[in-house]
Amino acid sequence: MSDQRMKLGLSMQGYGYHHSGWLHPDAPRGGAVDFKHYLQLAETARRGRFDMVFLADFTTFPMVDVPKGALGRRDKDSLEPLSILAALSPVTENIGLVATTSTTFSNPFHTARAFASIDMISGGRVGWNVVTSFQDEEAKNFGSSQILEKSLRYQRAEEFVDVVAGLWDSFDSDTFEYDKASGRYFDPAKVRVLNHVGKHFQVKGPLTVPRSPQGRPILVQAGASDDGQQFAARIADVIYGVQNELGAAQAFYRGLKERVVRFGRKPSDVKIMPGLLPVIAETEQAAKRKYKEMQEMVDPLVGLEYLARVFGDLSGYPLDGPVPELRTDIQLASRSKIHLETARRNNYTIRQMFQSVAIGNAHHTVIGTAEQVADVMERWFRDGAADGFNILPAISPNSLVEFVDHVVPVLQTRGLFRTEYESTTLRGNLGLEEPRPLPQAAPQEAAE
Amino acid sequence: MSDQRMKLGLSMQGYGYHHSGWLHPDAPRGGAVDFKHYLQLAETARRGRFDMVFLADFTTFPMVDVPKGALGRRDKDSLEPLSILAALSPVTENIGLVATTSTTFSNPFHTARAFASIDMISGGRVGWNVVTSFQDEEAKNFGSSQILEKSLRYQRAEEFVDVVAGLWDSFDSDTFEYDKASGRYFDPAKVRVLNHVGKHFQVKGPLTVPRSPQGRPILVQAGASDDGQQFAARIADVIYGVQNELGAAQAFYRGLKERVVRFGRKPSDVKIMPGLLPVIAETEQAAKRKYKEMQEMVDPLVGLEYLARVFGDLSGYPLDGPVPELRTDIQLASRSKIHLETARRNNYTIRQMFQSVAIGNAHHTVIGTAEQVADVMERWFRDGAADGFNILPAISPNSLVEFVDHVVPVLQTRGLFRTEYESTTLRGNLGLEEPRPLPQAAPQEAAE
Repeated sequence: MSDQRMKLGLSMQGYGYHHSGWLHPDAPRGGAVDFKHYLQLAETARRGRFDMVFLADFTTFPMVDVPKGALGRRDKDSLEPLSILAALSPVTENIGLVATTSTTFSNPFHTARAFASIDMISGGRVGWNVVTSFQDEEAKNFGSSQILEKSLRYQRAEEFVDVVAGLWDSFDSDTFEYDKASGRYFDPAKVRVLNHVGKHFQVKGPLTVPRSPQGRPILVQAGASDDGQQFAARIADVIYGVQNELGAAQAFYRGLKERVVRFGRKPSDVKIMPGLLPVIAETEQAAKRKYKEMQEMVDPLVGLEYLARVFGDLSGYPLDGPVPELRTDIQLASRSKIHLETARRNNYTIRQMFQSVAIGNAHHTVIGTAEQVADVMERWFRDGAADGFNILPAISPNSLVEFVDHVVPVLQTRGLFRTEYESTTLRGNLGLEEPRPLPQAAPQEAAE
Repeated sequence: MSDQRMKLGLSMQGYGYHHSGWLHPDAPRGGAVDFKHYLQLAETARRGRFDMVFLADFTTFPMVDVPKGALGRRDKDSLEPLSILAALSPVTENIGLVATTSTTFSNPFHTARAFASIDMISGGRVGWNVVTSFQDEEAKNFGSSQILEKSLRYQRAEEFVDVVAGLWDSFDSDTFEYDKASGRYFDPAKVRVLNHVGKHFQVKGPLTVPRSPQGRPILVQAGASDDGQQFAARIADVIYGVQNELGAAQAFYRGLKERVVRFGRKPSDVKIMPGLLPVIAETEQAAKRKYKEMQEMVDPLVGLEYLARVFGDLSGYPLDGPVPELRTDIQLASRSKIHLETARRNNYTIRQMFQSVAIGNAHHTVIGTAEQVADVMERWFRDGAADGFNILPAISPNSLVEFVDHVVPVLQTRGLFRTEYESTTLRGNLGLEEPRPLPQAAPQEAAE
């Protein structure tokens, strides 16, 4: 921990992190694409004094029917995340608004301008979750049949973020004078023209958007690979983690803070927030039962569809038999690797395999009473595994409401979490200092 | 006219269409980048029962100091228009929300998804103003030193819009069933995968956003060149015109409706809405005085800066002397040509030249009482020059408030304009039918 109190974020995925969450009796009809649903989530998170809400980005609607009959049984509809963020801006207060944009499929001038604009509209509450994307399916909507190779994606991402951060620094907070008496609208001496000429981009600048109330948007990164961690250590204000075990989380935390320092930054400049999926009930027993019921709610066809991406079609095998050999032609994301290792270690059946991942994508799942969940959070926070947590509701909005009603008050009573916002900006609430120019990217050969 | 009642749009440019508008005593400080200002404009337009508000797109903040000392005296800051549109969605009702995106600097999948998302959030009130852009300055923020050549820009635009419209048609209005009993979320048979492979784009599809309440967003176009008119006739639901004289407007109107028919569409499928800048006062005399005062408010350095783009630096010439010869190395937009011809015809001095254009960019300016402004609008509407008007306030918000308070009631009394919205969607208020697939682009050689 680098602060007295932990930070909290909310992942606002449509029906929650349960792959069949839309089937829940309380699931809002069409909730994945209903703005009112996201507004309700953001309002609930604000009631719980969360630092921020977060939106992933889904740029595909995959139409592969494997196994046969699975297609159509899972929600695949989504709205473009920056549109939700902008729409939330005028109807929310205090809470940070973070959305994902891929550096592989976007343009740095547009990305800089869009986030800066929403940062202005929201009064300085915006963050950008930088991803490089990894699916061929996504590439096919953006003019290519295959995704860029991983190290190239990171190369492009490094330059992309440098351009965006440079554009966000186009103006000082006093560049615009609006002085009707002298006729001077802005001071040309206080404008920085970027004139970037790099390997992937040529961008002149300046931006069209004045400096935001929080200086510039917050940068969020979630890469868990070595490339990803090195990138995050250089550029991120917030890092999402995927560790689901204390020791691994501590090692990740320690390693990243060391990398951060090697870029000339302070450990407290970066908040590390692992994902956490809470399943809460009055007793531990009841919570376990609740989780079991959630697992049984997983539509087997949806479970098999998910597994098919890694294992191919398993519908010919018995659901309660062992998982056959892995296909070797697939590039796995870090999270899928963790998932696979867990399954192998536990000798899961096919059904156990998809049930173990169909709630929370193998993120750290904590099942118990509100006190027990708070205990785990306190332990991780105090023992150097987390500066805060990114909360993943299993069923949305129910799991969030339970967390806000029951876990947040426990954390507050223990002095581990705020009872009122410290600031109107996201940077202020995260306790981050005024932004400085990004450190230079390490030359490729020097990177560990 | 193709309807009993005219349509009205509002151009929401920051401080209005006066190049020194920010100097006006009532101009809101920082209004160009203040969301509350845009919200006030949209609310006023809704009070006036306007069909829609419109946002242009400024992707540059030019830092050329010609003539010396001019830089810094004009507002050049702006927000990204789709961010404003999304933010307006949850806090407005009924009124249409139109924003500009350039087909030269954007990506069709992203554009389709962003507009579709805001269309969902707003309940079917969105429109896309399709532009191809024409300034090198803009290209420099997007990786090129020069803008694409004009016919190439239109080729790309035709394909771009086909892709976007195709993606918008990915789903039927009943594709998503959300049926918890059967476990069926959507019907795969009611999904259209685009599989577009063209000269400029390869886009697989489908989109991630369900069909909007108005079918798909409205398409708006403003091209006045031959390429532009041909493009508009094929794709546009609404066409912005720049004519400032009845005869020319009638010819433009007639010509365009003929082109529309040649694409197999009905004349009423397209609403032609020329720009109109009203200057209103209690008497004609007072209105003329008001306009004169507005002209005198133009900062001469700002006027010369504007002219410099076409004529080079004229600061060495007497302001009240004749305009020297035009540079020949500049590609003029249609509107600049009209402006230039007007100036030549009237033997304007340098000062008269910039004063004539510094309010409304040479758009049709009508100066008089509310009744007189309504007279002109009625005449144009009844005599085949317009289906409605795109109102350009000289000073924002004042000129809009005057128009809504004084001209709108006259139009309503005469039965020329609605007193209540007919629909909750933009398509509904414009009186347009359910969208059909776009007609095919005419082969290049067959275009007139």
